[in-house]
Amino acid sequence: MTNTTTCGCGADHEGRKAVAVDADLKERNTNRLKRIEGQVRGLQKMVEEDRYCADILTQLSSVQEALRGVSRELMRNHLKHCATHAFRQGNEEAEAMYDELVELFHKHAR
Amino acid sequence: MTNTTTCGCGADHEGRKAVAVDADLKERNTNRLKRIEGQVRGLQKMVEEDRYCADILTQLSSVQEALRGVSRELMRNHLKHCATHAFRQGNEEAEAMYDELVELFHKHAR
Amino acid sequence: MTNTTTCGCGADHEGRKAVAVDADLKERNTNRLKRIEGQVRGLQKMVEEDRYCADILTQLSSVQEALRGVSRELMRNHLKHCATHAFRQGNEEAEAMYDELVELFHKHAR
Amino acid sequence: MTNTTTCGCGADHEGRKAVAVDADLKERNTNRLKRIEGQVRGLQKMVEEDRYCADILTQLSSVQEALRGVSRELMRNHLKHCATHAFRQGNEEAEAMYDELVELFHKHAR
Repeated sequence: MTNTTTCGCGADHEGRKAVAVDADLKERNTNRLKRIEGQVRGLQKMVEEDRYCADILTQLSSVQEALRGVSRELMRNHLKHCATHAFRQGNEEAEAMYDELVELFHKHAR
Repeated sequence: MTNTTTCGCGADHEGRKAVAVDADLKERNTNRLKRIEGQVRGLQKMVEEDRYCADILTQLSSVQEALRGVSRELMRNHLKHCATHAFRQGNEEAEAMYDELVELFHKHAR
Repeated sequence: MTNTTTCGCGADHEGRKAVAVDADLKERNTNRLKRIEGQVRGLQKMVEEDRYCADILTQLSSVQEALRGVSRELMRNHLKHCATHAFRQGNEEAEAMYDELVELFHKHAR
Repeated sequence: MTNTTTCGCGADHEGRKAVAVDADLKERNTNRLKRIEGQVRGLQKMVEEDRYCADILTQLSSVQEALRGVSRELMRNHLKHCATHAFRQGNEEAEAMYDELVELFHKHAR
């Protein structure tokens, strides 16, 4: 189920690639983001037509929720591949990963 | 500064239009949403290229923040025009508006 | 149902009192906050006993949710009494209230 | 810097203890939670005195922020000790930990 499309990564943070990305996840996220793009265009139309503010706000919430869905999948992939990789490297890489995860966690927790 | 483009509204909730929308706000929000649409396409590209998960997550946060900017402006317009209108109508309309605002507030507070 | 305990307020922002608080809301919020105080003491005990981090984190979320319940009730009271009062005063007071509400809304939307 | 007070744990999830807790973290979180308890009592007093709703809401935000500070520290400890431990166990334990972390992440991301 999870053919992974590996990539350079790890030491090489030039291009900052993921250690690995599950193929099915990649497809799901691409589809989600296309839908989200459509929703954002829908929002532009609502603003254009002076639609009722509360209706636009509700639609904005729904886009936010959809983006959280993408985050959630990415976070799982990140833990499974990138974080696991770093945690196994030992001290320095692991420490950097703790900081990064706490930072991500905190940024999204607001 | 605030030429308002009035609209049907109030009693007529068929089309669910805003009571009024400040013209400069409308332009600002249209521009923001166009930028956000571009950011969402950028996210698709990042996913396509197996970019580092944490970098995509950070970019997702930035889109979320941009959407909150739109919400913030809309909420101000909503209070200024739609809510003020309802609060002045008296009991029933005002009660419905309290519920709506508390609901919006709570939905976004998550 | 809503005996209000009025208070000085309005012009007098020295003591910064609410325009009015519904008596039943006051009782509900007092009870909620007592329960929340108990939950916070429970958290201290969990930390003391080196309880599993994820269990403490889940309990922290539940306290956060309980606090949002208090916010929600307060916001409703604020709209019903303080905001309605300001919106009826006309321009300057109303403008200040829009700013305050948008600020509160934004602060909680994180 | 990080004297750890180890504990049973790992296989034994009866008592659901942390794999390890850094001693300085434990002290910081205990102190934070005591301050938060005091803030919650302060909130009770504000409600009792019919203080201005927006002032109570602002104070509620500040308690939420303080709780996020506790979460942040706990999450770091959780990653450093419990998650690292699980990730090194191999597949089944690691998978369960991914799910748990994504769940925690999502719960706090609201």
